[in-house]
Amino acid sequence: MLHFNHYMPTRIIFGPGELKQLGTHEALPGRTKAMIVIGESGIMLQNGYLARTQGFLSEHGIQSLVFDRIKPNPESDSIAEAATICKEKEIDLVVGLGGGSTLDAAKAIALMAANDGDLWDYVAAGTGKNKKPNNPALPMVAIPTTAGTGSEVTPSAVITKSGGNEKIGIRHESMYPIMAVVDPDLMLSMPPFLTACTGMDAYFHAVESYLSTVRSPNADLLALETIHLICHYLPRAVADGEDMEARIALAWASTAAGISLSQAVAISQHSMEHALSGFYPELPHGAGLTMLSNAYFSFLAEQGVERIEDLAMAMADALEVDIPEDQLMDAFIPMLEELIRAVGLAELNLSDYGMKPEDIPALADNALDTMGRLFEISPVKMTREDVITIFEAAYS
Amino acid sequence: MLHFNHYMPTRIIFGPGELKQLGTHEALPGRTKAMIVIGESGIMLQNGYLARTQGFLSEHGIQSLVFDRIKPNPESDSIAEAATICKEKEIDLVVGLGGGSTLDAAKAIALMAANDGDLWDYVAAGTGKNKKPNNPALPMVAIPTTAGTGSEVTPSAVITKSGGNEKIGIRHESMYPIMAVVDPDLMLSMPPFLTACTGMDAYFHAVESYLSTVRSPNADLLALETIHLICHYLPRAVADGEDMEARIALAWASTAAGISLSQAVAISQHSMEHALSGFYPELPHGAGLTMLSNAYFSFLAEQGVERIEDLAMAMADALEVDIPEDQLMDAFIPMLEELIRAVGLAELNLSDYGMKPEDIPALADNALDTMGRLFEISPVKMTREDVITIFEAAYS
Repeated sequence: MLHFNHYMPTRIIFGPGELKQLGTHEALPGRTKAMIVIGESGIMLQNGYLARTQGFLSEHGIQSLVFDRIKPNPESDSIAEAATICKEKEIDLVVGLGGGSTLDAAKAIALMAANDGDLWDYVAAGTGKNKKPNNPALPMVAIPTTAGTGSEVTPSAVITKSGGNEKIGIRHESMYPIMAVVDPDLMLSMPPFLTACTGMDAYFHAVESYLSTVRSPNADLLALETIHLICHYLPRAVADGEDMEARIALAWASTAAGISLSQAVAISQHSMEHALSGFYPELPHGAGLTMLSNAYFSFLAEQGVERIEDLAMAMADALEVDIPEDQLMDAFIPMLEELIRAVGLAELNLSDYGMKPEDIPALADNALDTMGRLFEISPVKMTREDVITIFEAAYS
Repeated sequence: MLHFNHYMPTRIIFGPGELKQLGTHEALPGRTKAMIVIGESGIMLQNGYLARTQGFLSEHGIQSLVFDRIKPNPESDSIAEAATICKEKEIDLVVGLGGGSTLDAAKAIALMAANDGDLWDYVAAGTGKNKKPNNPALPMVAIPTTAGTGSEVTPSAVITKSGGNEKIGIRHESMYPIMAVVDPDLMLSMPPFLTACTGMDAYFHAVESYLSTVRSPNADLLALETIHLICHYLPRAVADGEDMEARIALAWASTAAGISLSQAVAISQHSMEHALSGFYPELPHGAGLTMLSNAYFSFLAEQGVERIEDLAMAMADALEVDIPEDQLMDAFIPMLEELIRAVGLAELNLSDYGMKPEDIPALADNALDTMGRLFEISPVKMTREDVITIFEAAYS
């Protein structure tokens, strides 16, 4: 019996050069004062993306100020700082320009600019107080410059609590961006390692949302499409960052996986990765997922999670290899390994990011505590011991 | 180069028995006075759907009144009458319960309840004045009881001008239903002929939106999925109306085709059918499309419209027949004929609905005049002579 809810109200404007549509009146009626949220690295200034964004907004009568203090794993203190500025300056639109961390930060800022208290008051896990926000978030526009997180089409933001290692997703329907401008031109500047890590993030969003017990038929279609596109185009974009056809395909794959994720939710591999990048802030999220994946999906395959066969079929189809139906389950991990090799991530090592074997019990507790809900919608039950075993296998 | 916009803000609640979610607070905050729009046939009363709808609304503090004067091809006078009642009674929510005509009427009522003047002031073709509405439509909830039109997820309403034969689609973004409750339980009561006609409507929405020059990758995925589901399940539901698995699949197919349609738009077969059912009001829309289809798609296949091969592949896949790649184009029409036979519509005849050969030039003019825009996004150019030729072939 098919039962599902579908809700994804973000307006997507997709295509090379479409940033110019940013200020179009239809989507942003009545907005006059924007905060543009960018990362602290200065890249958005250097490559001119910030100036173009400000220009397109001002053409349509929207003034903007810039908040540029977002770190790669954004922290709750910087969210509070930006939200205070929004209130003081009577900001009525938040624009996130950058990678997933920046877009997530912009969503959290939009929520806190319209509500009192501290972000952790509204976080539903860990030390969060699980309060309901009184007001919807300010309208927020997402302009991704990487192809991976899909944050531009989800109502979630992953934020790390300042002074701790709680890295938790906060989700509120009003945090769906009102508009996502997905312009592959803005992704040409990604270096190969970033291209590979973010592309693998999209791949795992698709794989996990397909395996989650929250079923949604459109999410399934988009997940299989994403897997197909990533297998076909991610090695090309890593090899040649100027390959525009690949950049366009990956931009759509990332958004497609994001829609899938917003309807069907990620599973416990994401809880485990958030523990890792919560403990080791230098670890890129997509790299963390990649290093966990062999151990994690081997565990699922051993438990006979049938839908892995569909994923294997989508990969085999993209790679144009023929695999007999009764060998699909066993073929998934070798194809995943091959994909990781093809995108240049086979040599990644968790110890290079500071992980030590003695951290593993605390990592397992963190994964189960801060994002335990994702374990509930995973296709198999996992004990604390299982989680420890997977971390150990990923480390070795 | 892929460029597209995607916007489909309707919240879909899907599944057998899910009508009970109708009044849930989250989607309908602050609404207290609803108009429920139903057809004039009395079916919604007899089968208890109306009482259940009113009950679920009142459980959540929403009072309702009923407007039951919607004909199968709804006319502008009844829209005006209902809109006046909405204004007098300070209605703040419109609920459409029924087939596509009823849902379309409810959307038009929601627009006119919030705006002055006459519906035809806002119609963009024919004798319409193409004005922009000053206000967004009232929030509208769509509860389909047939599986075909997909009206529950589109911002369009097809209305016939009273006292004429202009049957035109009016489209406004605020006419997207805020919520669509797609409950296959409500579709069990459809008799075989209605099941077949509405199912074929969904099939043609998918086929046409796939062939339109307005590209959207999610629309493409949903279109191919719909074609697959219709070929597999529509003959089953026509043969056995109690086949719940088939009813569920067709309910999703109809909604999926509706989403596809809302993103990619139908092509000129729809313009031609609207002329037919504008002239002959007894003609069900899906039956009109079915009778046009052989002539219409034969014309497209002769012109070598390549994407027809993808449609043929989706049909062959559903029917589990192997067709060599170079024969896909030729295989489409025979498979379409087989589908029409399998759903019991092979004996339909345009003359049974009152069509006469001498009407054809006026039908062609009506199609080109009232819905000419769909000719512009069709995959091949069509002259008035071509349109006449297709009508002649469909008649003979």
